[in-house]
Amino acid sequence: MLYLIGTGLTAKDISLKSLEIIQRSKKVYLEIYTSKLKEQLKELEEIYKVKIHEASRNLLECTNEIINESINDEISLLIIGTPLLATTHTDLLIRAKEHNVSVNIIHNASIINVMGCYGLYSYSFGRIISIPYFEDNWKPTSFYNNIYNNKINNLHTLCLLDIRVSENEERFMTPNEALNQLMQCEEIERKGLIELNTEVFVICRFGTNEEAIYFGSIEEMLCKNFGKPLHSLIIPCKMDVLEREHVNILFNAKK
Amino acid sequence: MLYLIGTGLTAKDISLKSLEIIQRSKKVYLEIYTSKLKEQLKELEEIYKVKIHEASRNLLECTNEIINESINDEISLLIIGTPLLATTHTDLLIRAKEHNVSVNIIHNASIINVMGCYGLYSYSFGRIISIPYFEDNWKPTSFYNNIYNNKINNLHTLCLLDIRVSENEERFMTPNEALNQLMQCEEIERKGLIELNTEVFVICRFGTNEEAIYFGSIEEMLCKNFGKPLHSLIIPCKMDVLEREHVNILFNAKK
Repeated sequence: MLYLIGTGLTAKDISLKSLEIIQRSKKVYLEIYTSKLKEQLKELEEIYKVKIHEASRNLLECTNEIINESINDEISLLIIGTPLLATTHTDLLIRAKEHNVSVNIIHNASIINVMGCYGLYSYSFGRIISIPYFEDNWKPTSFYNNIYNNKINNLHTLCLLDIRVSENEERFMTPNEALNQLMQCEEIERKGLIELNTEVFVICRFGTNEEAIYFGSIEEMLCKNFGKPLHSLIIPCKMDVLEREHVNILFNAKK
Repeated sequence: MLYLIGTGLTAKDISLKSLEIIQRSKKVYLEIYTSKLKEQLKELEEIYKVKIHEASRNLLECTNEIINESINDEISLLIIGTPLLATTHTDLLIRAKEHNVSVNIIHNASIINVMGCYGLYSYSFGRIISIPYFEDNWKPTSFYNNIYNNKINNLHTLCLLDIRVSENEERFMTPNEALNQLMQCEEIERKGLIELNTEVFVICRFGTNEEAIYFGSIEEMLCKNFGKPLHSLIIPCKMDVLEREHVNILFNAKK
């Protein structure tokens, strides 16, 4: 049996059920490449009272090692946040099925819980998008167009920011970098989606003790330092009257 | 301090952090009107080892009782699933702020974790919709149109089904009732969204030990008995090649 277990947003977000499974598992892995918390491996080990092994992208995607181990034993694969939000893990489900290994999924909180937290209606969010790092020769604008499509359908957009975690690098896109890339997309696409006075929410370290949320124009946000990762953005569409009222109260905004 | 604490999907989904807060709280409430699990109050009391008070819609929405209690003490309000997904609770945040009561939110798993679990891409979901019970004189079709809008934007729709929990009644919409209402909407709107051979996912008791998922045509689903609540639907848009392949493997479908 293979357990895919969401750790939630902080070390102590683990559930009672998950902890029981983790503590009786033959071996416990932590997926370390779609999120942060690599540094928290030791902290998780202390709280869970088990030895935790790192599971690299290579181990999970290019080998069946963990699936083979799960044929006769209970194996836990910890995933920061909640499992299966990152589609990279669907492939693991498929391969487990091909090897007749049962998979049990234990969900937990993740960044998608942010919908509804800051005065916007959770059912007024459209598709979630990711903003990938631009490269010198690769500046895709599809995320800009997806935000635009949400907006013309009167839907807010939660934007997840790129993460690069490997043996060689550890980079987390800052809100400033993300907003800057959005401005570059505007230069290319020119749909009037992103202007200096466009209002955005910047979400810092969601769900942790150091959570901080800022709401204001892109111009105001561009010069701020948002501190340690992880960060996300919400690009709201035109808010409904009650949403605007709630946002104004929650953020002491004056508009 | 007022804590809004998500209980997750089953009794043992509570997190270590939440349990610490619950056990040191002066008083613990369970919000009982936007979800099920009223029957599990006793079970939660046993697992959490605290006395739990029921919080009715009236208590939460028409009085400031819980907010007043939170001025000088730590009070926990348990919410099945995750807090603030149901917008009914934003009002509580606002009133707490007006009374200078700090609110701390502890997220957990909820039905929105379903995105990404069954072969569909989580980032290909559009807005989440709710299907309300039709009344004799009230047959709104806005949810149909929202599903339609998602579909023409090539986005899947997660449909939450209506719940009526009060002192006088306890009703949970079945997938059959929901599909039946969708067929009635089709009769009215005639956009070709819902036909007997339209494929849907029926999600039963998501995240619990009795979870069951069915995938097939509405015609196949209409005659099934899906058992105890809670239930939800996913109305997929046209799947991408890889999604279709994954869904076929996961559900042993032949198409």
